[in-house]
Amino acid sequence: MNQDLDPTDIQPDFAGAGGLLPAIAQDHQTGTVLMLAWMNAESYAETLATGRAVYYSRSRGRLWRKGEESGNIQRVHAVFIDCDADTILLRVEQVGGAACHEGFQSCFFRQVTPEGSKIVGQRVFDPAQVYKL
Amino acid sequence: MNQDLDPTDIQPDFAGAGGLLPAIAQDHQTGTVLMLAWMNAESYAETLATGRAVYYSRSRGRLWRKGEESGNIQRVHAVFIDCDADTILLRVEQVGGAACHEGFQSCFFRQVTPEGSKIVGQRVFDPAQVYKL
Repeated sequence: MNQDLDPTDIQPDFAGAGGLLPAIAQDHQTGTVLMLAWMNAESYAETLATGRAVYYSRSRGRLWRKGEESGNIQRVHAVFIDCDADTILLRVEQVGGAACHEGFQSCFFRQVTPEGSKIVGQRVFDPAQVYKL
Repeated sequence: MNQDLDPTDIQPDFAGAGGLLPAIAQDHQTGTVLMLAWMNAESYAETLATGRAVYYSRSRGRLWRKGEESGNIQRVHAVFIDCDADTILLRVEQVGGAACHEGFQSCFFRQVTPEGSKIVGQRVFDPAQVYKL
């Protein structure tokens, strides 16, 4: 421990980033990186207060309570910020087993190789069933 | 496998994001999230071609070959892109054991708790020694 490096109360620097910071969600047990989304100060505060991941949807222009449509919420086990206070990391329990709207556990289900991209993830659910497309 | 979801050759959408995309570096063995940095098309191409993580430094306004100053390069074991093709995930071997310029294994060495932030990471090196401050 280096307590001398721990200032009074480091907070994410939303203002310095124009209001939005990237937030990484990682499975709290396996370490799998599930997704990256964005947070503003309001979504961050609600996440801390409720223990449920809340992001800011850039496409919808409003708060996005992860799972509000699919039911696949993320229970937040721990929150971290990086050295520059401009990225947030959540360790979460992904209810339903899939973070990705395409039905995969992780949004990073495509690997890039010299031969092109290939799907390496396994589907957990059928999006057409979950989102009533 | 869902080959039907695998289009010809998905590439990161740098143009749609104004040129820069977030890139997450994760330890390829432990799954620890080490850092988040940014990539432009040039840094991404060089990363794929050389197998060494290259980012774009927003503060310096130029390519940042991770480890160019500290020697702590990142050897890239696998590259992933997310469902929206707007985030990159690298699974890397972090030479020297520390990704963070402050000498910690991970840049996410601060946990946020209701009592404030606290340092939970262990220092691997002394930045004053590595960077000759």
